[in-house]
Amino acid sequence: MTIKVIEINTPSPYLVLSKHEKIPKVLTISNSAENENDIGTLTAHSVHTAVCTTALVAGTELLAVPEPIIKQNIQLGRNADVIKTGSLSVSNIMTVVKVAKNFKCLIIDGTVLSEESYEVMKRELTPISFLFVVDVAHLQKFNDTLKDVFELCLEKSVETNAANILAINCIQENTNASVLFQVDNQKFTVFRHDSRFTKVGCSSISTSIAANLANGYSLGGSVYGALEYVQNSQSICSEGAKDKVNFVHNIRVPLTAMVQDKCFKGNDLISPPKLVKDPTVTGDFLDYLNKHKYVAKHWDDYVNHDFVRQVAEGCLDLQQFKFYIEQDYLYLADYARLHCVSASKAPDLLDIEKELLVLSVIKRSMNCHKQRLHDYYGVVDENHMEKVQRSDALNKYTRYMGEMARRGNWRELIAALAPCMVGYCAAVAKYVGKTDPPKGSIYEDWTKFYSTLPLEESLAKGRYFLNHIARTCPENELERLIKIYGDVCALEAQFWDSPLAYKV
Amino acid sequence: MTIKVIEINTPSPYLVLSKHEKIPKVLTISNSAENENDIGTLTAHSVHTAVCTTALVAGTELLAVPEPIIKQNIQLGRNADVIKTGSLSVSNIMTVVKVAKNFKCLIIDGTVLSEESYEVMKRELTPISFLFVVDVAHLQKFNDTLKDVFELCLEKSVETNAANILAINCIQENTNASVLFQVDNQKFTVFRHDSRFTKVGCSSISTSIAANLANGYSLGGSVYGALEYVQNSQSICSEGAKDKVNFVHNIRVPLTAMVQDKCFKGNDLISPPKLVKDPTVTGDFLDYLNKHKYVAKHWDDYVNHDFVRQVAEGCLDLQQFKFYIEQDYLYLADYARLHCVSASKAPDLLDIEKELLVLSVIKRSMNCHKQRLHDYYGVVDENHMEKVQRSDALNKYTRYMGEMARRGNWRELIAALAPCMVGYCAAVAKYVGKTDPPKGSIYEDWTKFYSTLPLEESLAKGRYFLNHIARTCPENELERLIKIYGDVCALEAQFWDSPLAYKV
Repeated sequence: MTIKVIEINTPSPYLVLSKHEKIPKVLTISNSAENENDIGTLTAHSVHTAVCTTALVAGTELLAVPEPIIKQNIQLGRNADVIKTGSLSVSNIMTVVKVAKNFKCLIIDGTVLSEESYEVMKRELTPISFLFVVDVAHLQKFNDTLKDVFELCLEKSVETNAANILAINCIQENTNASVLFQVDNQKFTVFRHDSRFTKVGCSSISTSIAANLANGYSLGGSVYGALEYVQNSQSICSEGAKDKVNFVHNIRVPLTAMVQDKCFKGNDLISPPKLVKDPTVTGDFLDYLNKHKYVAKHWDDYVNHDFVRQVAEGCLDLQQFKFYIEQDYLYLADYARLHCVSASKAPDLLDIEKELLVLSVIKRSMNCHKQRLHDYYGVVDENHMEKVQRSDALNKYTRYMGEMARRGNWRELIAALAPCMVGYCAAVAKYVGKTDPPKGSIYEDWTKFYSTLPLEESLAKGRYFLNHIARTCPENELERLIKIYGDVCALEAQFWDSPLAYKV
Repeated sequence: MTIKVIEINTPSPYLVLSKHEKIPKVLTISNSAENENDIGTLTAHSVHTAVCTTALVAGTELLAVPEPIIKQNIQLGRNADVIKTGSLSVSNIMTVVKVAKNFKCLIIDGTVLSEESYEVMKRELTPISFLFVVDVAHLQKFNDTLKDVFELCLEKSVETNAANILAINCIQENTNASVLFQVDNQKFTVFRHDSRFTKVGCSSISTSIAANLANGYSLGGSVYGALEYVQNSQSICSEGAKDKVNFVHNIRVPLTAMVQDKCFKGNDLISPPKLVKDPTVTGDFLDYLNKHKYVAKHWDDYVNHDFVRQVAEGCLDLQQFKFYIEQDYLYLADYARLHCVSASKAPDLLDIEKELLVLSVIKRSMNCHKQRLHDYYGVVDENHMEKVQRSDALNKYTRYMGEMARRGNWRELIAALAPCMVGYCAAVAKYVGKTDPPKGSIYEDWTKFYSTLPLEESLAKGRYFLNHIARTCPENELERLIKIYGDVCALEAQFWDSPLAYKV
C-alpha cells in the first residue's frame, strides 16, 4: 500500500483578474437535439446557457414536452442577455408568445422552421425580434444574383417586421455568401465565404450570433464572428467526420494548461511523452526535413526561385525589386518580434543568447534595406516605411508565424522560423562565382549580403536550433514540425512570387 | 441604401495543423439538468458529447423518458471513448444494464445516487466500471482522519468491485481533500484542496475526469485535472454568483481571437474601445499607480522592505543574502524571457530596442550575482545555479508574470514587469549617503549597483513604458492594469520576505 499527497494548484493569476466579470447568459428554446448542440456552441463562446426543451428527440421521433414545463423553463431563463429560438411547432410558438415579455434581445432562427410554423412566427414573434435568420437556399425565388438576395431581404423585412435580417447560403456558382440587412439604416453587408463552405453546422450560426451579442459585440461584428466560426468549424474537422463539424476547435483542454503551470504539483501523475529516437531525424534534422516528401517540393520552389535568378542575372525590374525590399523590411520587423518570442520560450540561456545574435543580424538586414531605398531609389522620407501597404503574401506569411509564436511551443516556432534562416544562403549560393549581377548594382549589393559571413552564421544557427528541437521532439509532434517547416517554405516561395507578380 | 462586402477569413493556420486529430467523445447518461451541465463541461474540455436523457427536469418535478428512447440513445452513443452515468433511478439502471456491453470506459458518479439506486448499482453496474466516485461528506462513518477515508475506500472497493475509487469531500476541520484509490496496485493518492473548496459544482468532477480520460490522460492526471478544474471554477466565479460556478473560465470568445488576426477583414464592424482620457492617469502613470489605493500599501511594503534596511546597515545574515542572490539570479533569467515577450508584443520598433537595452542590464545583473557568489562565497562550481532549488516565492512570482506574458496583451505585461524596473532604485535610494554598508562588503557592492547609473535608466525606462501603456489603455482595462501592478508589488515584497524567513 502506498500513499502520495499532492496539492491542488491555485487558479491561474490571469484568470483571477477576470473574477468579477459577469458571464453572459443565453436562453435557447428548441427541441433537445438542437439544444444539446447549442449548449456546446454557447459554451465554446464562454457563455452560460439556460435551456428550454420543447420536444425530446428520439431518433426520428419527437416526444412533445407539456406546455407548463416549457413555460416554467422560459420563466427561469427569461432574464438571459439573449434569447434564441430554434425548431418550434405552431403550438410551441403560441406557448412562447404567452411568456415572451421583456425579452432583452430575441434571435429567431428561421432556417429550421416549417412553412406552417413560419406563417405563425411572422405574425406572432418576429415583430419583437432583433434578428431573423433565413436560409436562402431553401427559397425557389432566388435567381443567382446578390441583387435578388437584397430584394428578398427587403421582402422578408416587410413580412416579419424583424429589426434585422440575415440571409445565409446565398450560393452563386462556386461562391457562397451571407447577407445582413440592417433595416433602420437600410444597410446591406455581404459576407463572402470560402468556396468550400457548405450547410453543415449552419444551424449554429444563430447560436454563435446570440453568444457574440451577449458578449457585447455589435450586430455586424457578431454576425462576422458567427460566420467565420462556423466556416472554420467545417474547415478544421477531420476528413472522416464530415457530418460532425468541429465546434471545439478554439478550446484547449484545461489540464494541458495546468501541466505547463510553473506551480503545477502533479508532475508525477502525467506520463512524459516518448521522444523521437530515429537517428535519421535527430542526426541532421535540416537535411531530413529538406528531403522529406512533404517538404521537398516546397523547399525546391523556395531555394530555386526565379526571383533569385532574375536578381543574380541582374534582369529583374527595378520597381519590382523596390516592392520586394519594402515588403521584406516589414517582414523583418515582424520576424524580429518572433525571434523575441522564440528567445522567451527557449529551454536554456544559451539559446536565448543565440537568438539575441540573430536579432542583431535582422537589424543589420533592415538597415541595409533602408540604405538601398535611399541610395538606389532616392527615398529620403523618414516615414516612408510607415506608408508602405502590406501585401497579402506578407500578411499571410507573418500571420502563420505569428500563430506559431502565440499558440505554439518552442519547437513549433523554431520550425516556422527556420526556413528564412537557412534558405536564403542556399538560394543565393548556387549563383556565387557563376552568374554575377552587374558591378555596383543594387543586385550585386543584395547578393553579396546573402553570400557572405552573417548569413552563413544564420545557416549554422538554423541548423543548431533544428537539431535542438529534433532531440526534444515528442513522437506525436514530429509530423506537425514537418508540416510547419514545409508550409513556411511554401510561404517563402509565395513571398518571392509577389514581387514578380507586382504590376509596375 | 449602402452595400459593403467583407471576406470571411480562412481558419487559423495553427488550428489547421490539428485538422486530422480525432475529437474524443463522451456519452453522458442522466437527467436533463445534469446532462445540460455535462455538455457544457465536456465542451469546455474540447470533447464532443453524446447524450442520453433518462428524465426531463421541470423545476422540482421529473418527467420519465420511456425505456425505448433511453435504449436507442445509448446505442447511438455507445462507441464513445468514455461513458459517464449520473442520477439514475433503479429502473434507469436496469435499462442501462441491458445495453451496457463493450463500453470502452465507464465512470459512475455515485455522489448523486439515492441509497436505493446505489444498492442496485453496486450489484449490476459498478463491477464493470473503471471508476466509482463517492461523496464522503454524505457518509456518517467518516471520523475526520484520512485513515478513515482509506478504510472507506477499501470497503467501497469490496462493495462495488469497481477498478478504482475516488472519494471526494474528505473534510477535516479547515481542510478538504479528495482521495483516489487504485485497487490493482493498492495505491492511495491524496489531493489537498484550497481551504475554501466547497461542494458547489462537484457533480462536474466525474464529467471532467471522463473528458480528461477521453483526451488520453492517465487516471491520476485526469483526477488531478478535474479537481483543479472544479476548484478553479469555484474560485473564479464572481461573488454574486455563488450558485453558478464559472465553468467557462478557460475559454476565450472566438471572435476576440479573430479580431487580433493579421488577416482579419472585418475591422469596420468592430467598434474601437474608448481610451482612458483622465490626465491624472495619462500624465504620469507611475505616480498615479503608486498613490492608488489598491497599490499604495503593496508599494510601501515593497520599497520600504526590511530586507533592504538590513542590507544597507550591513546586518543581514550572509547566508540569507546568499539565498537571496541565488533566487534572484533564477528570477532574472525568467525576467529576461519576459522582456523578450514584451519586445515581441511592443507596438513599435522603438519599444523593441528599449527592451533589448533592458535585456543587457538584466544580463549585467546576472553576471554580478555570479561574481558575488564567487568572490564572497567561494562558489567555483560552473553548474552551481542549476542545482539551486527554486523557492515558492520565486515560483509564485514568475508564474504570475509568465501568465501575463502568455495570455495578456502588451499593456498587461508591462504592468507586471514595471515594479521590478522602478522599485529597486526607490528602495535603495533612501539609504544612499545616509546609511552605508561596511566598506568592501558584499552589501556595499549590491547597494552601489542599484544606486548608480544603469538602474536610474531602468527607472526612466519603466516610466516611459508605463506612460506608453496609459496612453493606449481602453477604459475597461485600467482597473486590470492597476490590479496587476499592485499584485506584482506585493510579490516583490514577498520575494524579499523569503530570504529573511530562510533558516540558515
